[in-house]
Amino acid sequence: MNFNLNLPTRVYFGQGSIKNMEGELKDYRKVMLLYGGGSIKRNGLYDEVIEVLKGAGKDFVEFGGIEPNPRYRSVLAASEVCVAEGVDLILAVGGGSVIDAAKAVALRSRHMEIDFWDLMRNPRYLEGAISVGTILTLAATGSETNCGFVLTNLKREEKLGHGNPNVYPKFAIMDPGYTKSVPRSHTRNGIVDTIAHLLEQYFTPLSDQDVLTDLMLERIERLIKNTMAVGPKLLGDLNNYSYREEHMYYAYMGLNGEIAGKVKRGDWASHGIEHALSAVYDIAHGAGLSIVFPHWMDYVVERKPERVKRMAVNIFEVEDKGSDLAIAREGIERFRKYLRRIEAPLTPRDEGIDQLDIDKVMHAAFARDSVLGHYVKLEEKDVRAIFESMK
Amino acid sequence: MNFNLNLPTRVYFGQGSIKNMEGELKDYRKVMLLYGGGSIKRNGLYDEVIEVLKGAGKDFVEFGGIEPNPRYRSVLAASEVCVAEGVDLILAVGGGSVIDAAKAVALRSRHMEIDFWDLMRNPRYLEGAISVGTILTLAATGSETNCGFVLTNLKREEKLGHGNPNVYPKFAIMDPGYTKSVPRSHTRNGIVDTIAHLLEQYFTPLSDQDVLTDLMLERIERLIKNTMAVGPKLLGDLNNYSYREEHMYYAYMGLNGEIAGKVKRGDWASHGIEHALSAVYDIAHGAGLSIVFPHWMDYVVERKPERVKRMAVNIFEVEDKGSDLAIAREGIERFRKYLRRIEAPLTPRDEGIDQLDIDKVMHAAFARDSVLGHYVKLEEKDVRAIFESMK
Repeated sequence: MNFNLNLPTRVYFGQGSIKNMEGELKDYRKVMLLYGGGSIKRNGLYDEVIEVLKGAGKDFVEFGGIEPNPRYRSVLAASEVCVAEGVDLILAVGGGSVIDAAKAVALRSRHMEIDFWDLMRNPRYLEGAISVGTILTLAATGSETNCGFVLTNLKREEKLGHGNPNVYPKFAIMDPGYTKSVPRSHTRNGIVDTIAHLLEQYFTPLSDQDVLTDLMLERIERLIKNTMAVGPKLLGDLNNYSYREEHMYYAYMGLNGEIAGKVKRGDWASHGIEHALSAVYDIAHGAGLSIVFPHWMDYVVERKPERVKRMAVNIFEVEDKGSDLAIAREGIERFRKYLRRIEAPLTPRDEGIDQLDIDKVMHAAFARDSVLGHYVKLEEKDVRAIFESMK
Repeated sequence: MNFNLNLPTRVYFGQGSIKNMEGELKDYRKVMLLYGGGSIKRNGLYDEVIEVLKGAGKDFVEFGGIEPNPRYRSVLAASEVCVAEGVDLILAVGGGSVIDAAKAVALRSRHMEIDFWDLMRNPRYLEGAISVGTILTLAATGSETNCGFVLTNLKREEKLGHGNPNVYPKFAIMDPGYTKSVPRSHTRNGIVDTIAHLLEQYFTPLSDQDVLTDLMLERIERLIKNTMAVGPKLLGDLNNYSYREEHMYYAYMGLNGEIAGKVKRGDWASHGIEHALSAVYDIAHGAGLSIVFPHWMDYVVERKPERVKRMAVNIFEVEDKGSDLAIAREGIERFRKYLRRIEAPLTPRDEGIDQLDIDKVMHAAFARDSVLGHYVKLEEKDVRAIFESMK
C-alpha cells in the first residue's frame, strides 16, 4: 500500500490568473507558443498571451495547428523547430491535445537521436526535457498538471500513452473564463473524459476493505457525482463562469495524480480500448470513452461485480437490494442513461462508424500491451468480445 | 475564489521508503543530520540513516538536541554550523519540531546578515535557502511536506510561525514504521494536532453555499472523522502498523496544502492562542490545542454558530433538531468528550498550569498580530475573555 507522490506544477487557478505568467517566464530565453486550430485567435486569448510575452521581453516562436488526438508527425515537426530555434520553454495554450503534444515535443527535443515512436512502444526513462508551461482552454484531461501524454500515429493506426516526470508542467494557468467559448460538443466530451478518468481510478484492483483505499474511493464517488451534477447545467449554460469553474476543478482533481496517491493503480483498460478506436477512426477521446466504458462494464461485471455494484449504489443511488449482479447492471444502465441525457454517443454508429473493423481496432488495442486493465485483466479474446458487443 | 497551489515535495510513503533516499542525495555535497532528543538512536533509525549517508558516500555533520517547541537559539546555533561547514542539504530526522527547525536553519543560513527574529515578527519574502529533506518520525503537523515553521523565543516568551516557498522539503520519507516507538502521550498529542489542523481549515470564513468550498469541507469532515476513529484504536495498540499508517496519512493530508487549495484561508486563531500558551509554559502543541480549541468554540459560537453547528451535525452526529446554537453547543460538548476519552487535557490545570498568567499569555498572543482569526476576528478583549474562560 506504499505510494510515491509528486505534484510539482505551480497551479494558478481562477479568473485573471494569467497575471502570474510573467513571473514564471523569467528563467527562460526563448519560448515556443504551441496551440491548436486557432480558436485562441478567435476568442482573444492569443492576443493576451502575445502581450504578456512581449511585455516580459521574451523572444518567441509560434507553432500552431496541433490536432485533436495530436499527431506524432506534428511532434516531430515541432521538435525540429525547438532545436533549431533554441527554445527553452514550450508554452502550451490549449486543451489536452496541445498540452500532450507540448510534453512530447519537450522530451523529444532533448533526444533527437532516438526513434521516438519506439520509445512510445517500449517505454523507458529518459533524462531531461525542455520546460513546459500550460494555459488551459478546455477542461477534460488533467494534462495541465500531470506528466503523461498520448500521441496518435495515423500511419501505423496506433495511439499510445507515455509519461516522464521531466515533463511535469512548471506552471499551469487555469482560468475557467478561457473555456467559456468551448462549443457544446467539446464541453460534453470534456465532461465524459473527466468522469472516465475518475472511473478508471475507481476501478483499482485494491480492496475497499482497506480504510485508505475506501477513503479515496469515496472521494472519487463525490467528484464523479459533482461532475455529473454540473454537466447538464453547464451544457445548458455554456457561458456560466461558476459551472466552467466547477468542471475545470473536477477535471484537474480527476487526473492530477493526487487521487492516484493511495489508489496507485487504476484499471485503464477502457482507455486502451478507446485509444484503439480513435487511432483508427480519429474520433474525440471523450466520445470514444462514452462508447467504450459502459461496454467494458457490461463485460467485467460478469466476472467481478463488486466495484460495479459499489458504483451503482454509491454513485447512481441504486437501491442495495437483490443480487450484486442485478444491482451492478442497473448501475450500468443508469450510467448509459446519464450519457444519453447529455447526448454523448453510446455506440460506434453514433459517431458515424457504421462498420467497426474489428481486426484493425484489435491491432491498435494490442500495439504495445498484451493484457489490458487491472481490475480485470483482459486478454485479446476479451477485448475482441467487447468490440463485438459494440457492433 | 481563486487559489494558487504548489506541492513540490517528492513524497515516499510507506514501509521501506527510505530506499528512495540515496537517489535524492545525489545532488548534494554536504549534509547536516538534524535531530531531536535522541529517540532515533534508541530505535535504530539513526544507524539506518548513517548507513545510507555512508553508502551514498556523503560527507555529513550532525546537529542533535532540537527541542520540542524548537528554540530560536538552536536555529541560530545550527545555522552557524551550516555556514561554517558548507552544508547544502539539511536532513531533518524527527517530528514537526525538528522539521520546523530545519526549515528555519535552511532559510537563516542564507541570510546571516539579518535579524531573524525580526523576520518572524515582520514577515517578508526572502530569496534562497539551503535544501531540506525530511524523514518523519512523528505524525502530527504535516510539516514534512509544507513550507511553514514555528519557532519559540523563550527569552521573549514569543512563539511565531513563518513560511517561505524556498523551504518546501525536496523530499519526505514517510514510513509509518518509524513512528511505532512514539510514546502514548506524544501519539495522543499528534492526534489532537491533526484534528486541530483540519478544524482550523474547516473554520474558513468562506461560505459553504459555494459548491467547491462545500466539497472541501466535506473532505475535511471525512478526514477528521477518520482521524477520530483511528485515535483510540492507535492509543490502545501503539505498535500497530496500519493504525500508524492511517494517522500518518491523515496528518499529511491535514496540512500538506492540498485542502488549502480552495479553502485558502482557515481560521487559525486557536493556533495563535495556543502558541501564546506554549511560548510561556512550554507545553506540547497538541496538548495546548486540546485546551484552546473547545474554549475558542465556546466563545465564537455565540457570535457565529453556523460552522460550529455544521461540525456538530456532520462530524459529531448531533441530531439536526432545535436551535442552531443548542446543536452547536452539543457539538462542542461531544468534542470535549472525545478529547477526554483519549485523555487529552481540557484546561491549563490538566497540564500543570495552576495559575494562568493572563498578562503574559496576552503579550505572547499579540506579539505580532493585532487581530487573531478569520472565521471570527478576535481582538485583545476577545482573546482575554477566552483565556479567562480557561481558568
